[in-house]
Amino acid sequence: MPLAACIDIGGTKALIGFVDADGNVLAQERYAMAPGRDPEELVNDLADKTRALAQQSGYDWQQMAGLGYSTAGMLDVQRGIVFASPNQGLWRDVPLGDLLKQAFQLPVWLEMDANAAAIGEGWKGHGAGADYFVHVIIGTGVGCGILVHGEILRGWRGTAGEFGHTIIDPHGPLCNCGGRGCLESLVSGPAIAVRAAQVMGGAGPLEEAVDARAVFAAARQGDQAARQVVAETVDYLSIGITNLIHLLNPQVITIGGGVGVGGADLLMEPLRVAVLHRVGSWVDMQGTQILTAKLGEEAGLIGASRLVWKGTSMGSLF
Amino acid sequence: MPLAACIDIGGTKALIGFVDADGNVLAQERYAMAPGRDPEELVNDLADKTRALAQQSGYDWQQMAGLGYSTAGMLDVQRGIVFASPNQGLWRDVPLGDLLKQAFQLPVWLEMDANAAAIGEGWKGHGAGADYFVHVIIGTGVGCGILVHGEILRGWRGTAGEFGHTIIDPHGPLCNCGGRGCLESLVSGPAIAVRAAQVMGGAGPLEEAVDARAVFAAARQGDQAARQVVAETVDYLSIGITNLIHLLNPQVITIGGGVGVGGADLLMEPLRVAVLHRVGSWVDMQGTQILTAKLGEEAGLIGASRLVWKGTSMGSLF
Repeated sequence: MPLAACIDIGGTKALIGFVDADGNVLAQERYAMAPGRDPEELVNDLADKTRALAQQSGYDWQQMAGLGYSTAGMLDVQRGIVFASPNQGLWRDVPLGDLLKQAFQLPVWLEMDANAAAIGEGWKGHGAGADYFVHVIIGTGVGCGILVHGEILRGWRGTAGEFGHTIIDPHGPLCNCGGRGCLESLVSGPAIAVRAAQVMGGAGPLEEAVDARAVFAAARQGDQAARQVVAETVDYLSIGITNLIHLLNPQVITIGGGVGVGGADLLMEPLRVAVLHRVGSWVDMQGTQILTAKLGEEAGLIGASRLVWKGTSMGSLF
Repeated sequence: MPLAACIDIGGTKALIGFVDADGNVLAQERYAMAPGRDPEELVNDLADKTRALAQQSGYDWQQMAGLGYSTAGMLDVQRGIVFASPNQGLWRDVPLGDLLKQAFQLPVWLEMDANAAAIGEGWKGHGAGADYFVHVIIGTGVGCGILVHGEILRGWRGTAGEFGHTIIDPHGPLCNCGGRGCLESLVSGPAIAVRAAQVMGGAGPLEEAVDARAVFAAARQGDQAARQVVAETVDYLSIGITNLIHLLNPQVITIGGGVGVGGADLLMEPLRVAVLHRVGSWVDMQGTQILTAKLGEEAGLIGASRLVWKGTSMGSLF
């Protein structure tokens, strides 16, 4: 049975898995990843881990139809070049496609992480069948993948979907990108933690390591300050989602990523109410469904496999 | 020589013209239009005016390959139904396509005004050759048409491109739509006039009818308050344009509409600087060209004609 070897790599972790042609993840493993590594060394390490996982799972390397690789950063998927990947270190114009092909000895398809997850969710998740579909990722960063009639909306230089750097509140906090009040500076995991630390001070149940997970846990226990931080997060997010709806009028928007999925029980219902309020009298905007991503953390792997399965008919990129 | 009969209608005016297959506007006339008219009465009036203009210009009705109709409001271009057109009165589910076909006795193509202008500008204006192109209209209202590989990005219900109701400042003024801080409530002609009236009070060169045109004129003469209003307008607009760039990464953005074109000498250069500042470290976002629309007020007519010329090969919609 042919399999797609798939990798979904972010700033702090790599998921490696094998996915069949129906989108079933047959084996997967999660690895902690230190940022700032040399690209070639990273790629060789990933190849070793992937081969070991295949062996351990009883798969032969000959079964592998190709490598689908989902990565953070900005890249030219056609040429296989990573322009920049801030969460992985000071990479500049890295020929990642060639490095991967060499190390894996497989045809390689590259995709940006939010796009790969959108492709997965659009194939086997809640985006299936929607001609206009947006998959939003909220984690350490914030981004989205936009699917129009099943194809990624890439933009001129391939950088469309930088939802996290749309400006939500021009009077808001400074963002890593140098802007002010970007969505990422308001609703990402680190942003939630920073706001929580501000309103909660050093006292209360969160006096130690405040992160988004801890804020959600405290809110579930009724902590008023944590609930306030969650409510603000919903409010900011509702502005971004409203803007997405007005510009793109998608049928379905899914919310994924660690923060989005991890806080779904707290975020989603108030988010739907807030968006409905904000789109207001725009009847035709009210029908957009806002759903928690169905595939969870596997969306990127499944999307990466889709590249391999779609691509085998037209040859690989590398 | 075959011609397209074209109409571009807004809340207060109708442009009627005849356009050849190369996009040349061979005859056109502008008519003031009272809002709130009965659809059938309006359509018959337009048919009379169009026939009269044809006769007066020496064109035979037999030359007309079809009618291209650009209109404000929200519509289903496939079925020819106008759901709502606030600037034209309390229209609800008007079968405009059928009414036009009956009155004009021509095949009819409908398009939303911002989309029609985008199609025109993408065909014969600054959007020509750009795979990702956005045409922004700033006038009484604010909207945009998004062209991806030459096709309008419509969205699920056909209402994509409502750029004017993306939220720019959640603490901003109330908008007609019921929202707060929408782009339209900050940079439309009426919004500019309202802000000018607030900062200028009753004194100074603008003590009478303050409209965007008067604000621009005063700013050109060095009026400090008017300059301040223009600077604020640029700042708000730069947020909206930055968000467009981050989401869609277009190669070219053109600014059209009465306010956009009429104030271009004051708005465009500071707008480019402000957007470049806001996209900041996003190198790949910096290449987007921001240009004044090339076709001016004729963009809608030329775009409407394009529908006819593209459509003749596949039959008309009505």
